[in-house]
Amino acid sequence: MRVAIAQLNLHVGNIDANVSRIRSSLGQAKNQGADLVLFPELTLAGYPPRDLLLSQAFIDDCQRGLGQVAASCHDIAAIIGGPSRNETGQGKPLFNSAFLLYDGKVQAVCHKGLLPTYDVFNEDRYFQSATDFSTVDYKGERLAITVCEDLWNIGKESLYALTPPDVLMKSRPTVLLNISASPFAWNHMPQRMRVLSANAKKYRLPLFSANLVGGQTDLLFDGASAVFGPSGQVVDRLPAFREDMRVYDLSSVRSSPHNEGLPELEGKEQQWAATLDALVMGVRDYFRKTGLSKALVGLSGGLDSALTLVIAEKALGKENVWAVLLPGPYSSEHSVTDALALARKLGVRHDTISINGIVESLENSLAAQYAGTESGIAEENLQARARAVVLMGLSNKFNHLLLNTSNKSEAAVGYTTLYGDMCGGLSVLGDVYKSDVYGMARLINAIGEVIPWHTISKPPSAELKPNQKDSDSLPEYQLLDDILYQFLEEGKDAGEIVRRGHDEALVKRVIEMVCLSEHKRFQSPPILRTSPKCLGVGREMPLEASWQSLLRIHNA
Amino acid sequence: MRVAIAQLNLHVGNIDANVSRIRSSLGQAKNQGADLVLFPELTLAGYPPRDLLLSQAFIDDCQRGLGQVAASCHDIAAIIGGPSRNETGQGKPLFNSAFLLYDGKVQAVCHKGLLPTYDVFNEDRYFQSATDFSTVDYKGERLAITVCEDLWNIGKESLYALTPPDVLMKSRPTVLLNISASPFAWNHMPQRMRVLSANAKKYRLPLFSANLVGGQTDLLFDGASAVFGPSGQVVDRLPAFREDMRVYDLSSVRSSPHNEGLPELEGKEQQWAATLDALVMGVRDYFRKTGLSKALVGLSGGLDSALTLVIAEKALGKENVWAVLLPGPYSSEHSVTDALALARKLGVRHDTISINGIVESLENSLAAQYAGTESGIAEENLQARARAVVLMGLSNKFNHLLLNTSNKSEAAVGYTTLYGDMCGGLSVLGDVYKSDVYGMARLINAIGEVIPWHTISKPPSAELKPNQKDSDSLPEYQLLDDILYQFLEEGKDAGEIVRRGHDEALVKRVIEMVCLSEHKRFQSPPILRTSPKCLGVGREMPLEASWQSLLRIHNA
Repeated sequence: MRVAIAQLNLHVGNIDANVSRIRSSLGQAKNQGADLVLFPELTLAGYPPRDLLLSQAFIDDCQRGLGQVAASCHDIAAIIGGPSRNETGQGKPLFNSAFLLYDGKVQAVCHKGLLPTYDVFNEDRYFQSATDFSTVDYKGERLAITVCEDLWNIGKESLYALTPPDVLMKSRPTVLLNISASPFAWNHMPQRMRVLSANAKKYRLPLFSANLVGGQTDLLFDGASAVFGPSGQVVDRLPAFREDMRVYDLSSVRSSPHNEGLPELEGKEQQWAATLDALVMGVRDYFRKTGLSKALVGLSGGLDSALTLVIAEKALGKENVWAVLLPGPYSSEHSVTDALALARKLGVRHDTISINGIVESLENSLAAQYAGTESGIAEENLQARARAVVLMGLSNKFNHLLLNTSNKSEAAVGYTTLYGDMCGGLSVLGDVYKSDVYGMARLINAIGEVIPWHTISKPPSAELKPNQKDSDSLPEYQLLDDILYQFLEEGKDAGEIVRRGHDEALVKRVIEMVCLSEHKRFQSPPILRTSPKCLGVGREMPLEASWQSLLRIHNA
Repeated sequence: MRVAIAQLNLHVGNIDANVSRIRSSLGQAKNQGADLVLFPELTLAGYPPRDLLLSQAFIDDCQRGLGQVAASCHDIAAIIGGPSRNETGQGKPLFNSAFLLYDGKVQAVCHKGLLPTYDVFNEDRYFQSATDFSTVDYKGERLAITVCEDLWNIGKESLYALTPPDVLMKSRPTVLLNISASPFAWNHMPQRMRVLSANAKKYRLPLFSANLVGGQTDLLFDGASAVFGPSGQVVDRLPAFREDMRVYDLSSVRSSPHNEGLPELEGKEQQWAATLDALVMGVRDYFRKTGLSKALVGLSGGLDSALTLVIAEKALGKENVWAVLLPGPYSSEHSVTDALALARKLGVRHDTISINGIVESLENSLAAQYAGTESGIAEENLQARARAVVLMGLSNKFNHLLLNTSNKSEAAVGYTTLYGDMCGGLSVLGDVYKSDVYGMARLINAIGEVIPWHTISKPPSAELKPNQKDSDSLPEYQLLDDILYQFLEEGKDAGEIVRRGHDEALVKRVIEMVCLSEHKRFQSPPILRTSPKCLGVGREMPLEASWQSLLRIHNA
């Protein structure tokens, strides 16, 4: 039997487009001699459909789409994903299902047993978990069909009472199939490969896994679908961050030579390169799937907006990106020259609009109320918000989506202005620490200067008061980022971070800044997720809380 | 045995404060001769603790708090709620537990079996559901201890495979106890009373239910804890929207006279009155629990900001509320006079700051780019954003929390400006349709004019261009609200709404406006939830989606 993996970039809610995408892949696979094509999880709906799943009309349309795809399955079989109604009268109204289609009909339905409900996932909100699992015979093979998380109850951690493939093994399947929507984080692909390989090895079966590719708002799917031989050996891995389809001869996979070649977590450079690819895909898909084409970026002369502009240009093309410089009362000359140099290098439209008159009129309007107070953060925020109003004025007038340029370090500690530099329709770097922003900028410049080196080398500054530097208000970024990483990504508490060598007062100060800015991040634009713990999707902190437990230094 | 219900207003994460609140209730109950005191769900942690539950330090502190409360339990018993670690090595790391405490120790632990994961709830994210349930003997009674949702798998709908009290009945308990955190919606209390009564009746047992009271950011808990006799009769109901403790003689409850007195869903006036009480509590608690005391309201002369100001004054006192009038180029004279009349009536500080100079400087700054374009929504947004920058300038400078004044109707269809009138730290009316804003305003004025009648009677207008009226851009609010209610609260699809008598083109237009403004609401402040389907907490729509299924008119 010849098995194809169709690694597609699907669109949530766009059932018509998804159906025609599936159909054209089927035609292509048939031409290449495939007997069976494996598609990603929830193929018809797109992933994650969120509360669209609560609409009966949406479920009806998914069912209709299923019928359309089934009708195309002649001389070929497909395994596609979609929601199906739970008719048992008990439990959640839907299953997250895989459908085996051939001879023009739905031949078998396999429901997902393990529903991830943690971090970015909330499948228990919609789906009932299946407890019965059956294999299906097709063309002399016995298929064990599983959906994503069904293969993840393996190894030391045992999050679920049930392990679906264990149940399936009772029927002695000959091949393990998995349809999935497993999102990107810079460290996730090697982990996914280990889990899949461990399944192939444990059950001594060839394993084919089709993973979703593409950006879906904040969630980025890398694809990197994979095929394993029955001793867990990697037979093939599809590319990351783009669609692809490949056809495999099952008997060759079964007898492929043993190897130990599982990918390891790579170094910083590879992390930065993968993150860049993910962000470019995320920006491109957000525009394409929302029907927009043109982006606006406020270019400050600093590094965050420079990197955002480079990513936007790669994603959308220089003709679709508009850079706007907004010098204010404390902008330095090099900010303007650095920003202009980059815009010219990239060949994007760039305009310069001074905010001085606006800031002056704001200060005049507030003069009576502000009288007798000392100039401080409120005055700095006026400048940030003046820029936001100008940028949004261009965005609204000319239908350009404004890209947010905040990085994760400043967003984490609230070194941002709500409705000021926090504005925009999509946050490009909100899940990238400042240290990694530097790394990515250097990587981009490795084959020749794109971002002016001066932008990279000068001390970071918000330029909201004379001679201001980020380091006046914040610890040095390397120190800050290490504490943030331990607190956010690694989930360490204050005591552990101190015991690992950081200053107690500093650790408390950083964690307190994170806690006290939760209310700002609540109003943040969606953030492209590239790390294992994003400050947007996948993190749900209370706002009206006491943070006493997070700030106390607990003993080991 | 004498059973007390302590209906407390707890604070998420504030374990120290919650422990001392519990202890003082225990002392009070002891003085009143109680043998056992029932507290709300997750008493120690506050509800909902959200991702604080992922912090080991937080769980440690809850355990420590549990020990402190247990140590206070001499000559009295308590049933309190808190997280407990799942030590089985399988499943989610925590249980949502009820602890029976007496003689200075934890005597029994009962884990929640049914974990709500729908609408505003996501308990499967944190907790493992229990499958074993045991009664506990205390003072000659056999207690069936349950946690909130454990009693909700009753009646026609069967969301769960298991019904915990069915299991508990095997041990022949003599009383049913329930600790809960069941939030307010204007229609929810009668439903909750029906469910609890049905349990008492089904199991022929007296039932005591302690419900949380107080605001917790967007979720508002009404309390209204209740006691039922063994034929389902209501014996007592505690007040809504405030703390209380009452002590009951179990034998009197057991033998209380039969009655059929379950509360019915009441009329519109009662809905408005309860919603007002809920909003006042929500505003008051948000300020108190975040350590703030002073509020800022932008007062336009329109009805939404007027009602917001009245609620703020009721919640915080006139000395803590600051009204700011921001007349612009198209503000009418009556807007200013109506706004001033209200501010004077309430006796709150009020300032007037014209935005004309700011708008002019914004238009000047954008003149080169705007040249040759027709004036439109972008220009209107400049005015809304100029107001936001001034309000936030006062908020930041003087540490006043800005209250958002948008109503649910305009938020639903996106008749709002992002970073403009959408600004603020808390949305007071974001879950109240404009029709209900009118109703609540009339209710407030029923005992004498507070809100100028002219504010209520004049046609609503954003006053962002000459002679503008909301009805230029939107259907009449009564029509709009009816379509929105069917679509959002009732979950009807477009076809059903049309079949119930609305114009097809209008229904499609309204639903499309809702869909196309999802990206704006993503950046909305938290919204005080008062309806069964809020546009904030409890609703998770995708942004980067096709809405084709929601817009298609499906046949019946």
